[in-house]
Amino acid sequence: LAQSSAGSDDKLNVLLILADDGGFEMGTYRNRICQTPNLDALAHKSLIFNNAYTSVSSCSPSRSALLTGMPSHQNGIYGLHQGVHHFNSFSDVKSLPNILREHGIATGIIGKKDVGPKDTYKFDYEQTEENHSVQQVGRNITFMKLLTRQFLQNYTQQKPFFLYVAFHDPHRCGHTNPEYGNFCESFGNGDEGMGLIPDWQPIYYQYDEIDLPYFIPDTIQARKDVAEQYTTISRLDQGVGLILKELKDAGFDNNTLVIYSSDNGIPFPNGRTNLYDSGIAEPMFISSPLHRERWNQVTYSLTSLLDVVPTILDWFGIDDSNDVAPVELTGKSLLPLLTKEPKNVTNERVFASHSLHEVTMYYPMRMVRTHRYKLIHNLNYQSAFPIDQDFYISPTFQDILNRTINKENTYWFKTLKQYYNRPEWELYDLKHDPEELNNLAGKPDYKKIMQDLELQLYDWQNKTQDPWICSPHAVLEDKGAYKNNPQCMTLDNM
Amino acid sequence: LAQSSAGSDDKLNVLLILADDGGFEMGTYRNRICQTPNLDALAHKSLIFNNAYTSVSSCSPSRSALLTGMPSHQNGIYGLHQGVHHFNSFSDVKSLPNILREHGIATGIIGKKDVGPKDTYKFDYEQTEENHSVQQVGRNITFMKLLTRQFLQNYTQQKPFFLYVAFHDPHRCGHTNPEYGNFCESFGNGDEGMGLIPDWQPIYYQYDEIDLPYFIPDTIQARKDVAEQYTTISRLDQGVGLILKELKDAGFDNNTLVIYSSDNGIPFPNGRTNLYDSGIAEPMFISSPLHRERWNQVTYSLTSLLDVVPTILDWFGIDDSNDVAPVELTGKSLLPLLTKEPKNVTNERVFASHSLHEVTMYYPMRMVRTHRYKLIHNLNYQSAFPIDQDFYISPTFQDILNRTINKENTYWFKTLKQYYNRPEWELYDLKHDPEELNNLAGKPDYKKIMQDLELQLYDWQNKTQDPWICSPHAVLEDKGAYKNNPQCMTLDNM
Ligand SMILES: [Ca+2]
Ligand SMILES: [Ca+2]
Ligand SMILES: [Mg+2]
Ligand SMILES: [Mg+2]
Repeated sequence: LAQSSAGSDDKLNVLLILADDGGFEMGTYRNRICQTPNLDALAHKSLIFNNAYTSVSSCSPSRSALLTGMPSHQNGIYGLHQGVHHFNSFSDVKSLPNILREHGIATGIIGKKDVGPKDTYKFDYEQTEENHSVQQVGRNITFMKLLTRQFLQNYTQQKPFFLYVAFHDPHRCGHTNPEYGNFCESFGNGDEGMGLIPDWQPIYYQYDEIDLPYFIPDTIQARKDVAEQYTTISRLDQGVGLILKELKDAGFDNNTLVIYSSDNGIPFPNGRTNLYDSGIAEPMFISSPLHRERWNQVTYSLTSLLDVVPTILDWFGIDDSNDVAPVELTGKSLLPLLTKEPKNVTNERVFASHSLHEVTMYYPMRMVRTHRYKLIHNLNYQSAFPIDQDFYISPTFQDILNRTINKENTYWFKTLKQYYNRPEWELYDLKHDPEELNNLAGKPDYKKIMQDLELQLYDWQNKTQDPWICSPHAVLEDKGAYKNNPQCMTLDNM
Repeated sequence: LAQSSAGSDDKLNVLLILADDGGFEMGTYRNRICQTPNLDALAHKSLIFNNAYTSVSSCSPSRSALLTGMPSHQNGIYGLHQGVHHFNSFSDVKSLPNILREHGIATGIIGKKDVGPKDTYKFDYEQTEENHSVQQVGRNITFMKLLTRQFLQNYTQQKPFFLYVAFHDPHRCGHTNPEYGNFCESFGNGDEGMGLIPDWQPIYYQYDEIDLPYFIPDTIQARKDVAEQYTTISRLDQGVGLILKELKDAGFDNNTLVIYSSDNGIPFPNGRTNLYDSGIAEPMFISSPLHRERWNQVTYSLTSLLDVVPTILDWFGIDDSNDVAPVELTGKSLLPLLTKEPKNVTNERVFASHSLHEVTMYYPMRMVRTHRYKLIHNLNYQSAFPIDQDFYISPTFQDILNRTINKENTYWFKTLKQYYNRPEWELYDLKHDPEELNNLAGKPDYKKIMQDLELQLYDWQNKTQDPWICSPHAVLEDKGAYKNNPQCMTLDNM
């Protein structure tokens, strides 16, 4: 045991905090209404990411990508893990907890796991929906605090640790547990039948004083929906405060990297399940006690949640090329950003890959985004963009749907018909069109830009072994006679 | 052990023999060219099914349905099991081998398994692609003979048995192993590099003396393709003979129910992956030594591969309502047919449910078929019908594709454009239109018939808990407020 770092001061840990469907509802990201003192305090001790994106705007696929560094089409979770969907990663995929455990690092998860198979995502300490109610383990911040304390007391004596705290807040609740409100905003608030979360002081908002993103219609129904979301954010925010206090009380605040982000876009129209910025842009802070020079600064570097695995491996000094073989990860460590903003960022790009969400929602999309442009390839573009069960019954979507059926003004920035019917290719100039409304694909002036982006997207699909690389107009032949020379072969199906 | 039936003469066994993509290429089904003396001999000692249909025309989904009695949308294998597709059944599904083992019956599988998870489909004796090359265990009939002997010698002393022999013949080979020919027709024929299967006497056919089904174009390319299929059928046929001889030599020919069928339609255009009759009609014989009264007779009763589980449970005297709970199987035991052809068959119907094949091939279809009519609901009808990797490179499809691109006569009974582009609903009068070319859906004269079939299909989807029951124009809400009152709720997406 002479080589062990147990008890030494240079023991470095990681705390990864994830929100579920969380967005930019906090002061740090200039929301003027939603009160998030704990998140803002963490941001003050962090590098704040202004261009962080998930690689897929759907729970299980995003969580699998977060924990493997591979896009969902490469790790095998093409859609949701639970219920009838039951997507799983390939069993030989190497996940972050499994790699870290092999390197003598204690691993723990508290909250919503939502990935599988079990052995592929194995933590030493697991307190998840697999052994608890997801509400208790993901929204009861007092319970989560105590679990965090238990992990920090019992698993970290001999080893550095990786703790993943995956809040279920601020996920919607109306689909599964409407008794707690649209966002479970009443769960644990002490009202009759709601239970009491002792550590939570709910904050309530007036619908007329909401900070409304451009992609949510300005109606009373939608505003009330957002107000309830904000109340749930108060539970998330206070939960983050409790977890960080446990970290500090256990004496780990000076040697633990803290990462905060969210798995996918907010559950509003044009958000979750979309590859528009409203669906993929994520809050992200990284707080390193060893890198104070950029605390409370903003980075504009294009960042992907696929970068989280390389970052954590880098933090622990683990060479990813040995551990994630035979797959070469396409992400990069973010640690260099903690000391210095890169000068030349014109070549930066992030990629995204969405295949399904619910198993009935087949709408594969592939995306590349630079600072200036975004290209989306919709593979099942001939069919209507699908709506999930959870979002469907939300007051905001019901309002849009009913107003559309009744031929009333929806107050939305696009029509439902536009939302359902998408062209195969979408190209946006984000500088002049941040709302992604003016499709430039096929316009002669943008031919060169589009070709270049198409090529980059194809290269990434190729590098990440995308089964959909030839869809929808060709068939991939990559076995037998084509084993050493894979081809997309025409279907003549246009 | 006083209650044990070990060694008693009333020990009843089952041998289930499955072809892979096999069709009606045999004398029994009036093919005048393809030589199948062993299959024909079995048919002579069997009830011959003239209206047997798979519930899904795709390997893994069909095999899972065969072994669970549940359509693939209910058991969870929505597409292929292997490779990047990696579909699996729900782990709590009860499969035939697991049920039988619990009842003290020895279970064995020799050949292609192609379903999972492992524990959900667990046989006492497993010789499959999981521990062998699929060619060896599924096409090397000498090896398969010896494995059968091993099982019969070592597993059947104390117990009745269920042996499942799943040939890989006559599946295509060109996609994965073109070195053995389009249908692996050269594998083991003794030629240089082909190996030798001692028990196989290959039969070769001239392309101009082929018995061509209506859905295969009459071109030299397609005829040569069929000729190679026939050669591979000779290996399947002789393999069936070897297996049956092992059964007889082991003394089990007088107490073993033998079932022969195939998993899905032949790998030709309009065949496999389709719910047209060319894709779902299957050969089937059931040979019972206890029911000789209808040997070599034909039944016209509408039969589904979903009936196999109830039939085998019935044969073993196991009450399916206790063992497959909480799911009520929709199939029926076929044993009554072995004694008597039913009189009133006008209410007979079979159902089918296809969701994906390869994971990139999302084309869910639902079907109901009576003796007279067939209704197909294409859920992703707005997109092109997909072509799989294996079929794509077949000489027959390449011929159709190239002739279409070159604007030549394809000699096919439909155009490629028709094949790709399908309406949401297809209704056929099979009496007057067995080739399913004249779509009657929406025609005023057939309104009543269509409504009736739609209702039956919906009822079956409901009874079998189809996740796609509301697709593609509505969202299923069945949780939370809708738990006791599931609804298909409009998307207004037409
Ligand atoms: Ca989420
Ligand atoms: Ca097959
Ligand atoms: Mg979700
Ligand atoms: Mg197959």
